[in-house]
Amino acid sequence: MPIINHQFRLAARPSGMPKDSDWNFTEEPVRELGTGEILIRIELISIDPAMRGWMNEGKSYIVPVGLGDVMRAGAVGRVITSNHAQFAVGDHVLGMLGVQEYAVSDGKGLTRIDPCVAPLPVYLGALGMPGMTAYFGLLDICKPQPGETVVVSGAAGAVGTVVGQIARIKDCRVVGIAGGADKCDYLRKDLGFDAVIDYKSQDVKAALKECCPNGIDIFFDNVGGDILDAALSRLALHARVVICGAVSQYNNAGPMKGPSNYMSLLVNRASMTGMVVFDYASRYRDAARELAGWMAAGRLRSHEHIVTGLAKFPEALLMLFRGENTGKLVLKVAED
Amino acid sequence: MPIINHQFRLAARPSGMPKDSDWNFTEEPVRELGTGEILIRIELISIDPAMRGWMNEGKSYIVPVGLGDVMRAGAVGRVITSNHAQFAVGDHVLGMLGVQEYAVSDGKGLTRIDPCVAPLPVYLGALGMPGMTAYFGLLDICKPQPGETVVVSGAAGAVGTVVGQIARIKDCRVVGIAGGADKCDYLRKDLGFDAVIDYKSQDVKAALKECCPNGIDIFFDNVGGDILDAALSRLALHARVVICGAVSQYNNAGPMKGPSNYMSLLVNRASMTGMVVFDYASRYRDAARELAGWMAAGRLRSHEHIVTGLAKFPEALLMLFRGENTGKLVLKVAED
Repeated sequence: MPIINHQFRLAARPSGMPKDSDWNFTEEPVRELGTGEILIRIELISIDPAMRGWMNEGKSYIVPVGLGDVMRAGAVGRVITSNHAQFAVGDHVLGMLGVQEYAVSDGKGLTRIDPCVAPLPVYLGALGMPGMTAYFGLLDICKPQPGETVVVSGAAGAVGTVVGQIARIKDCRVVGIAGGADKCDYLRKDLGFDAVIDYKSQDVKAALKECCPNGIDIFFDNVGGDILDAALSRLALHARVVICGAVSQYNNAGPMKGPSNYMSLLVNRASMTGMVVFDYASRYRDAARELAGWMAAGRLRSHEHIVTGLAKFPEALLMLFRGENTGKLVLKVAED
Repeated sequence: MPIINHQFRLAARPSGMPKDSDWNFTEEPVRELGTGEILIRIELISIDPAMRGWMNEGKSYIVPVGLGDVMRAGAVGRVITSNHAQFAVGDHVLGMLGVQEYAVSDGKGLTRIDPCVAPLPVYLGALGMPGMTAYFGLLDICKPQPGETVVVSGAAGAVGTVVGQIARIKDCRVVGIAGGADKCDYLRKDLGFDAVIDYKSQDVKAALKECCPNGIDIFFDNVGGDILDAALSRLALHARVVICGAVSQYNNAGPMKGPSNYMSLLVNRASMTGMVVFDYASRYRDAARELAGWMAAGRLRSHEHIVTGLAKFPEALLMLFRGENTGKLVLKVAED
């Protein structure tokens, strides 16, 4: 009896926020495995801001998801059938497995992960792409020095929480920008951020002036828009800005808002650099080792926000854009 | 009998384009020299886009010109009286002498220049601040490699003409963006640019696509606005953008236009860096030696556009913002 696979496929390219009608929820039998292939039952699906960009047409750092294709997603699953010498039944793997219940793979691009080293959701959080993004974006591009002031936007998100904690480990002063009192409390009390700005209730520009009396040395931007502009207005001399994302702008039906304070780069001899984490793939293993070491030492926490049920995928993606998650948003495919 | 000095003083902070009423044309006797002071008769005054920024209030890379103060300007003059051991009567000097006929100085910040090495106006052009800006902005920040495509905006201006010529010397393909057929002809025929885009008659985005089939490796921006956005949309992987100025935006009464295509920095793992030439002061001498060498070898030309008469200063500044100059705009204080 064939196994039935359920999937979310891209039905239409959204304008603005994705709507239910932009998705097709489909089912089909899992095909027979060929030589060298494995069948994976997907357990956890990563919900990422970048997904919104993958749904758009046009040149980007990765080809768009095709209309009718299974939505691209990072995911963790378990091998349930194997015709592959390097993957055994029961192995846990991480890869771009898509928004579905089962995936057939030839093993390319898959990483074996060990649930004894860290709980599985952490492989989508601090030890996964968000952790890698934080690690390379902060350490490689911005080169933080002890005593510098690091500001991170989207601070309560999957990347932001890790950026702030690594900056603390590197003896920087860390200021997070997040939306809502609960997130701000979490960052200050649980993660040890030095200061937090609630963009929903505070004037970000004025708050940055107060929190960063000597200016911003490093700005790690996940959100773009007015918050990027506010941060640019407070740069210190030789500041480094890393552009990791612009989640405030992804669902604009019109054009992006460009940073009108970009001339602050000139005034402050500062730089603004874009990053895509995939470029660092050859160094993921070393980064994961260091991140895992910090976690083992109690200096770095991974926090995941778990939503259960594959059918909740469209809603989970909207939660992300409404800022309803704290930490890494993960879709758990099935009840235990 | 005291010498009478005429001066342009800032009367009001302009909104938008400077108006005649923003200036006071004043006269006063030159004061007696103290010990260690020299009196300089100013011959040539540098007209720079940056002047517009110096007229605004607010934090920048240099303090604003105070209301009532003589307008700040780089200038070349001749020492006519000296109480200073290191400056003799007849010496030519370069420094921030202001928009006036005479300056008293203690010698600080002055450079002695030799009219036998290069004609005096060249010390305000390719061997002066514009040359230094082009040299350090291109070579230090962008690190051009042979075969790379370098695009420069404001290409027919004092900085742009030198940027393009240095890029050619470094075996890059050079594309200039300038306004009007005469300037474009000059860049292509006289300075050897590989391609030129006339932003007044061409669609810059489409023309960049045609002129830069493999994308833009280096964009040296003097103008900002829509041209910056067009260039961002054509970046190659690992492109470097240097923000040297934004002359299209300096006279906005409203806010600056931010580059709405800035996420191209992420897609292309590119960087955008601001520069202020003063930071390189300790290396001016070495740069001038190399630039003078290229000039002597016929590989680099300095072109100056000379307007005569101190009283023409307000008009000369407007010529700059209307793009009526080719090469370095210089105000010659008096007829020969």
